[in-house]
Amino acid sequence: MEISEQRGLDPMEQKLDMRGLDLREVRARIRDNEYEGPTAGLAPGFAQANLVVLPEEYAFDFLKFCVRNPKPCPVLEVTEAGSPEPVITAPDADLRTDVPRYRVYEHGEIVEEPRDILHRWREDLVGFLIGCSFTFEEALLAAGLSIAHVEQGRNVPMYVTATECVPSGPFAGPMVVSMRPYRAEELPLVVSASGRYPTMHGAPVHVGNPDALGIDDLANPEFGESVAFEKEQLPVFWACGVTPQAVAMKARPPLMITHSPGHMFITDRRHSEYEV
Amino acid sequence: MEISEQRGLDPMEQKLDMRGLDLREVRARIRDNEYEGPTAGLAPGFAQANLVVLPEEYAFDFLKFCVRNPKPCPVLEVTEAGSPEPVITAPDADLRTDVPRYRVYEHGEIVEEPRDILHRWREDLVGFLIGCSFTFEEALLAAGLSIAHVEQGRNVPMYVTATECVPSGPFAGPMVVSMRPYRAEELPLVVSASGRYPTMHGAPVHVGNPDALGIDDLANPEFGESVAFEKEQLPVFWACGVTPQAVAMKARPPLMITHSPGHMFITDRRHSEYEV
Repeated sequence: MEISEQRGLDPMEQKLDMRGLDLREVRARIRDNEYEGPTAGLAPGFAQANLVVLPEEYAFDFLKFCVRNPKPCPVLEVTEAGSPEPVITAPDADLRTDVPRYRVYEHGEIVEEPRDILHRWREDLVGFLIGCSFTFEEALLAAGLSIAHVEQGRNVPMYVTATECVPSGPFAGPMVVSMRPYRAEELPLVVSASGRYPTMHGAPVHVGNPDALGIDDLANPEFGESVAFEKEQLPVFWACGVTPQAVAMKARPPLMITHSPGHMFITDRRHSEYEV
Repeated sequence: MEISEQRGLDPMEQKLDMRGLDLREVRARIRDNEYEGPTAGLAPGFAQANLVVLPEEYAFDFLKFCVRNPKPCPVLEVTEAGSPEPVITAPDADLRTDVPRYRVYEHGEIVEEPRDILHRWREDLVGFLIGCSFTFEEALLAAGLSIAHVEQGRNVPMYVTATECVPSGPFAGPMVVSMRPYRAEELPLVVSASGRYPTMHGAPVHVGNPDALGIDDLANPEFGESVAFEKEQLPVFWACGVTPQAVAMKARPPLMITHSPGHMFITDRRHSEYEV
């Protein structure tokens, strides 16, 4: 079957078909708008990244925000203004075309969700690639741990906390966390496996008490979907890459472009390259 | 004896006298220009940092340079333009007074080496604090490993390599490395002990072959002093915090201020806070 015939397939079928492909093929099909689904599970072994694109006049304050809040905002790469090429994490890739689906915001409001941003690109735009939890989730699985939301076929639940990030210029706001349930006896392995990847959010920021983070109700996450707990499981919270997007949205820049949730940029770097 | 009487003492006597003092007292004496010696061994347990101060117009390119080259240039903090307070690593400290000795460069040339920079401070200056090898050296010692240059009473030898950093705007140049000799059988411990501190240069970047880094002669380091090797020791190289200073000097900004070599800024953060 030709790829072009796949456009009518539902995302799940399309995704299963992509799983056997290597990184170059996956990126080529995303670039050619032949795949527009989520990227979890694609190009196994390669790190994926959150994307934030901002005008240069916001770039220093935003980068400073990320450096001040490295747990939620670990910066993998910053591009030259006007260049869509991430020369460190994926030379030859193009941030304008190589994400399956984007979100374009004007003054903090979403205005479109296109499959490429060629029509939006400008010479003053700077791209930021920020670490993604897929890397430590792969490490959790490799350690023999299960991941509740994956097993339950849901998106990871994410919560806005009462913990304020350290502000920088117009960028300010609360830390967002993701949550995965584990039993107390699993915690040493959970912490050591995820902690080996500090640029992919690293070790959990909190275990056990949602109140301590200002989270009222685990059943009602602000983003993603709630997951069912098994007996004796505790909530384990990680700093989340949604934080910089939420904060940038609140700053209401005239233009901001991000990936669409779950539709990440796939880098050329292996997970192991970020392991310490 | 009153501290003010100590001004005539030689630096070594002055330093020995400082060793028993806690962090607040050490910082107060540095601030009051009562101590102007090197900071190695002072306020044990607390991380120290390299300082680079640049005008705001250079700040984004310099921060981008650091993010692109995280092994030699791990950023611990970036201050707000005009504010000398490092709110993350040492709230209430003052980057204008709390380093024992500074170096002031104009257009890449050193023009003075003052004990404070109050007379040089401007509203457009941004301070960068960059990780320092003292943290991983403390981890090496705690692991029972010796450090040759410490035992031999010398400064750590540093070499300019043939490895170019990833450039950013006007900032470009080779990576500088520091070198410590170890036996092959010690390497697993050397790598794991230092690797736990990725924001303090982390694990070595190379072991064994100076040629591979473009280093011609271990006996002639570009900075610091050479050290004697014991039988069966191999040279072990770490990315060095002199790199960002060397690169910034080459960019010849109208004004740049750094700490004087060995005269670091002492933070309020414990080494363990940077451990992964």
